[in-house]
Amino acid sequence: MLSKSQISLLKSVQHKKDRITHGLFLVEGYKSVIEFINSRYQIEAIYHTASFNPKVLKLSQKINISEISVTDLQKISSFKTPQDLIALVKIPTWPVLNNTMLKQKFSLVLDNLQDPGNLGTIIRTADWFGIRDIICSEDTVDAYNPKVVQASMGSLSRINVHYVNLSVVLAQITIPVFGAVLNGGNIYHTDFGSEGLIVMGNEGNGIRPEIMNLINKAVTIPRIGNAESLNVAVATALICSEINRKSYK
Amino acid sequence: MLSKSQISLLKSVQHKKDRITHGLFLVEGYKSVIEFINSRYQIEAIYHTASFNPKVLKLSQKINISEISVTDLQKISSFKTPQDLIALVKIPTWPVLNNTMLKQKFSLVLDNLQDPGNLGTIIRTADWFGIRDIICSEDTVDAYNPKVVQASMGSLSRINVHYVNLSVVLAQITIPVFGAVLNGGNIYHTDFGSEGLIVMGNEGNGIRPEIMNLINKAVTIPRIGNAESLNVAVATALICSEINRKSYK
Repeated sequence: MLSKSQISLLKSVQHKKDRITHGLFLVEGYKSVIEFINSRYQIEAIYHTASFNPKVLKLSQKINISEISVTDLQKISSFKTPQDLIALVKIPTWPVLNNTMLKQKFSLVLDNLQDPGNLGTIIRTADWFGIRDIICSEDTVDAYNPKVVQASMGSLSRINVHYVNLSVVLAQITIPVFGAVLNGGNIYHTDFGSEGLIVMGNEGNGIRPEIMNLINKAVTIPRIGNAESLNVAVATALICSEINRKSYK
Repeated sequence: MLSKSQISLLKSVQHKKDRITHGLFLVEGYKSVIEFINSRYQIEAIYHTASFNPKVLKLSQKINISEISVTDLQKISSFKTPQDLIALVKIPTWPVLNNTMLKQKFSLVLDNLQDPGNLGTIIRTADWFGIRDIICSEDTVDAYNPKVVQASMGSLSRINVHYVNLSVVLAQITIPVFGAVLNGGNIYHTDFGSEGLIVMGNEGNGIRPEIMNLINKAVTIPRIGNAESLNVAVATALICSEINRKSYK
């Protein structure tokens, strides 16, 4: 059984402020928990209900595992219908970004992205396309938000999500900076080369003017229908795919 | 002010059973409502709060418009923070699908898709890429679900979403049927030709075996990273883009 103070801590990390204070976040469900166990992340504790057999986790490390009641699980879960397994995981610190780290590969840049589902889907997509770093403006939704963790389907365990002052970082970068806009160059005709950053903007407002000023090439997904815009996670995936397809020619 | 029976009707159409009984659904927010007004859909009524000036809708048709209180709006809205405008719209009936209607173009087929956000995003993406018809298995999430309507961002007003017995319909089709799977032919090397259906499966389980049997060509988005799968709305968009890019060569 969990003590009141344990429940209070586990519930608190649903909120960004408390995640920062404690340096901890929650991962829910077997599939995601397994991916974090097999990653560089440090697991602080695992909680499961009687319906889950912890032996299937095949833990080699020494991790604190506790069986808890369904009532307690419901108290600490962020979801209406929680799964039977939750891990408390330490928020890592990534090395400070520099120009050299970003060379000879592609990374994503998110300017004030707000929807947790979108960020989770972008993390999952980046993982599919072999992208390692996602660089977010400080006001982008927190990657350790429970809805982001869930939508990333375990991929968060393999992607470094950095929160930085975008204007400062982009001004120091020497590799090409591409930005997704509604009236740029056709992505099907764009030579993305072998390295670069892909900047995606806010769901409603796109890329901010001060960030647009730091972009070398604006690109657009050609439209043949009538929708005003594409979902930002979809647009990110389409650009990642265009870069990826070049390795398959 | 709304009567109790009006509120009861408007609240009830949040549920599929009642949408079917009444043949009505709700569209919320200015951007989406405007798109439905300018579409083939029939608007039954429009409700707005005092903060919204209905003159900006520039209605040419005669539509019943009522100002309602914020309290009433909150009662009928499906969302925690409702916008100031809601339309009650008639569910249309599409012509029964046949082989001729689907020739010389691409349409999407969804086999037991469950997440309303995914369906809404797929409708929006289809609209961007000029796809007109989405053919769903009868157990796919309802397109008039409030979360689907919201995620489609008005594109639902331009897309025909059909609910059919997929096994029966696919067995009658003579155009190529492509299916998205995890171990099919590389989409970057696939010749999609000039017509076809693209079948996408359920979020967790993919395409059902009985539907797989009716597919002519299984295709896959090449992976270079480690994610186990892609979000189904993202995968749909990547295939639509591959078909679209051929018109830009």
